Amino acid sequence: MKGIIFAAEGFEDLEVFYPLHRLKEEGIDVKIASMEKGKVFGKHGYPVNVDIAFSEVIPEEYDILVISGGKGPEKMRLDQDALKIVTSFFENNKPVAAICHGPQLLISAGVIKGRRATSYIGIRDDLIAAGAVFEDKEVVIDKNLVTSRHPNDLFAFGKEMIGLIKK
Amino acid sequence: MKGIIFAAEGFEDLEVFYPLHRLKEEGIDVKIASMEKGKVFGKHGYPVNVDIAFSEVIPEEYDILVISGGKGPEKMRLDQDALKIVTSFFENNKPVAAICHGPQLLISAGVIKGRRATSYIGIRDDLIAAGAVFEDKEVVIDKNLVTSRHPNDLFAFGKEMIGLIKK
Repeated sequence: MKGIIFAAEGFEDLEVFYPLHRLKEEGIDVKIASMEKGKVFGKHGYPVNVDIAFSEVIPEEYDILVISGGKGPEKMRLDQDALKIVTSFFENNKPVAAICHGPQLLISAGVIKGRRATSYIGIRDDLIAAGAVFEDKEVVIDKNLVTSRHPNDLFAFGKEMIGLIKK
Repeated sequence: MKGIIFAAEGFEDLEVFYPLHRLKEEGIDVKIASMEKGKVFGKHGYPVNVDIAFSEVIPEEYDILVISGGKGPEKMRLDQDALKIVTSFFENNKPVAAICHGPQLLISAGVIKGRRATSYIGIRDDLIAAGAVFEDKEVVIDKNLVTSRHPNDLFAFGKEMIGLIKK
């Protein structure tokens, strides 16, 4: 089984490393994807190696997509290849887990309308404006989609993220 | 079920937050313990609330002990109450998981002699001098004791830490 985590410069460190190690715990082969290969740094200074550029990703090869938060999503949402990957996962009802600012990509990909979701409170109104049914909960599960608000929710996010792929 | 995580100023952030959320994922009630109650900061700047001082801990109430690494262990190993907690866990063969510099407390508590273990490579020779059988592996399991080397091993550390309490 393969997983892909989206991360870009200024990512929320725990929101990349918790899902990364948690998926690896389950024996899942995880790749970090971003605008280009190389190294990116989290807002707290942790580096992570980018294994693959968005433009090289074949979405069909992956079983779960995780979108981390922090300052990365405002950059990643401008990348058309990133949005194509998101769209592909939704069209095929494949597991997507987005946390914090991660749902900004769901707005830009046009996949959030009518879906129950949560996010960092600072972008709550953007989700609502885009047609999401916003819920202020540690984790919201709506079919293939799991969303959480911030790093303090990672225990619940991790549990439901794993729940999606164990169905 | 209850867990306790040791952390002090300068802790390795991921080595506190990964076990914290991972144990919470399993429904375990987790307390952060340190020299005194209040707030301590990781070396990457994440704050964590200290729920309980070492002097207040009743070891019998907890089912697993996790010792995080970073710069915290050199301070915590000087605290006699912290060492008493470690000793109690070993005397009762209860699960202990230590990562990175965390095994410094196992040396100071005098519980590492003859045990297979790993640690951050910078303290490898201290473990050997204290009588441990050192192994350079992502995770080493020796009865009640699980040890790992650094944050990149967290996926393996997390898996075996949970394995200890699910036995």
